[in-house]
Amino acid sequence: MEYRKPKHQEEDEEAAVGGDAVESLRGKAHSLNTVATLGGGTAVDPSKWKRKSIVTLALTVLTSSQAILIVWSKRAGKYEYSVTTANFMVETLKCALSVAALSRIWRNEGVTEDNRLSTTLDEVIVYPIPAALYLVKNLLQYYIFAYVDAPGYQILKNLNIISTGVLYRIILKKKLSEIQWAAFILLCAGCTTAQLNSNSDHVLQTPFQGWMMAIVMALLSGFAGVYTEAIIKKRPSRNINVQNFWLYVFGMVFNVIAIVVQDFDAVMNKGFFHGYSIITVLMILNHALSGIAVSMVMKYADNIVKVYSTSVAMLLTAVVSVFLFGFNLSLAFFLGSIVVSVSVYLHSAGKLR
Amino acid sequence: MEYRKPKHQEEDEEAAVGGDAVESLRGKAHSLNTVATLGGGTAVDPSKWKRKSIVTLALTVLTSSQAILIVWSKRAGKYEYSVTTANFMVETLKCALSVAALSRIWRNEGVTEDNRLSTTLDEVIVYPIPAALYLVKNLLQYYIFAYVDAPGYQILKNLNIISTGVLYRIILKKKLSEIQWAAFILLCAGCTTAQLNSNSDHVLQTPFQGWMMAIVMALLSGFAGVYTEAIIKKRPSRNINVQNFWLYVFGMVFNVIAIVVQDFDAVMNKGFFHGYSIITVLMILNHALSGIAVSMVMKYADNIVKVYSTSVAMLLTAVVSVFLFGFNLSLAFFLGSIVVSVSVYLHSAGKLR
Repeated sequence: MEYRKPKHQEEDEEAAVGGDAVESLRGKAHSLNTVATLGGGTAVDPSKWKRKSIVTLALTVLTSSQAILIVWSKRAGKYEYSVTTANFMVETLKCALSVAALSRIWRNEGVTEDNRLSTTLDEVIVYPIPAALYLVKNLLQYYIFAYVDAPGYQILKNLNIISTGVLYRIILKKKLSEIQWAAFILLCAGCTTAQLNSNSDHVLQTPFQGWMMAIVMALLSGFAGVYTEAIIKKRPSRNINVQNFWLYVFGMVFNVIAIVVQDFDAVMNKGFFHGYSIITVLMILNHALSGIAVSMVMKYADNIVKVYSTSVAMLLTAVVSVFLFGFNLSLAFFLGSIVVSVSVYLHSAGKLR
Repeated sequence: MEYRKPKHQEEDEEAAVGGDAVESLRGKAHSLNTVATLGGGTAVDPSKWKRKSIVTLALTVLTSSQAILIVWSKRAGKYEYSVTTANFMVETLKCALSVAALSRIWRNEGVTEDNRLSTTLDEVIVYPIPAALYLVKNLLQYYIFAYVDAPGYQILKNLNIISTGVLYRIILKKKLSEIQWAAFILLCAGCTTAQLNSNSDHVLQTPFQGWMMAIVMALLSGFAGVYTEAIIKKRPSRNINVQNFWLYVFGMVFNVIAIVVQDFDAVMNKGFFHGYSIITVLMILNHALSGIAVSMVMKYADNIVKVYSTSVAMLLTAVVSVFLFGFNLSLAFFLGSIVVSVSVYLHSAGKLR
């Protein structure tokens, strides 16, 4: 088993354009959070607007800084840790933060039906499903590189946007207006445009199997996100931290499996924390916080908001990278940003009355 | 004076992408039609829908075939005629077609106040203005190439879309809904995206003077189009062919000036029709018909419909060029086409109620 093989592949992607960094992060945030989301599904009404805005803003800022940390760690040449152990640490940290939040709530409000940690089999049985879906998706990721190169995969990953929208409609049975559907198509086109570079046309030569795998991966990723939202919103009054706790527990379990499958030898020979640096610690902290932000967005907003949030984060990262790392922005990036901005406007202007 | 100097420059542009061909044609159609539009301003209501659709479709098809003829003539290596004489022939042909249409109307309906050719100074005094604006724009075109290369100019010409929208709002005082404004921004971004190629980023290095000239040219072109619509719609009952006649007469006058200024020596030495071929004749015929179609769109629809029509024509041309000339479509072209398509949908879905 090779030490962090998929990470190496993703490094190439991030090298391509500033904007790519968060894009690759989007997938990564998924796998790190595994089942980042959960909770009790509060309906979004005007009085919840402030909370919804805060969690969305937090997710955007955290996702942007995630990508910047990755570029930074790459530049510093400190990237020799095992991704699976880092993912495990992220899940563990999220779990610990959930318990810490809960113990404070118990102290203030006492233990109630909605905030007690104990659960029924009936409630908990669905919690491993998102984690399992992400595991399958991450395994597929190894094979898709036989058909697509890394920048091409980066481009194809924008299919996630469409799959999330379609599955959101089908599984959660929530309606988007026609204008909002148009906005969603624009979001996908705009994000892809922003990532275009001189080699992007290669993706059109992707063989049939590559397209199929990309579509399957997009569906798995979209399904995991939408399913998580369904779990969280099924019981609106349930405390989000309890829902997080159970999601993260299964995230830990599945990451132990990943460590054993992928990095067992390396961890045995070099140690669990081999290659960790201050940047690694910051990245784990950041991923844990963004994972919790994703949960909050799922609980107080929805998958659509999450997709917009991470897409805008991609653009922010690219702009910030100009100042931090001297990246150049391409004309395609400007055009893609315009399209994404118009899409954000249309999503809000096109709300169903 | 060099024989068709600006044409040579534009050839480079058209070589870049299939889609570029019509794009460059868009400006060319303007200068050929000079004051292609005119008439009497019929308000667009449901009963006029059919006529509006037919003229719009005609403009789209004619603009597409224009670009294809240009690529064809270039491939055939037959491109040695003087552009100014060809422009003059286009204006003359349009004038003749207008008179032919009028004489038929006179025979059937008799001469009325609305279809008689004679006019007042008060009516005719505004007709040379669009032709004069295009002349200034075409002269500026010589100088902008000191700051921008041909493919860069092609990209910058998409500013015409925005300038047309803004001037349409300001001068004609017609309202677009917010969704339609969003659609218009998308149309500009989508057309530009569809034309992206590996050298497009050069346009970001355009010096300040280049940007200023591009903006001035876009404003001149937009103003000429919007002003023409204002002239045509000022007197709705006036027969379109009379309005065409007067616009084209001034188009002929201004093209005589252009021949004298640019191609006098060449025409004197080699003759007026030097280098004309069957393709040249077809191109003149096509330009004349598209010029009349532009007039009709201005009369029965508006500048916004014209911009959409020529933009969709650009995409059609690129697709047709794949079959005719074996052009390759880029990923950027697909993304731009998606954005333009969504823009067309939004323009219609976003109509003010």
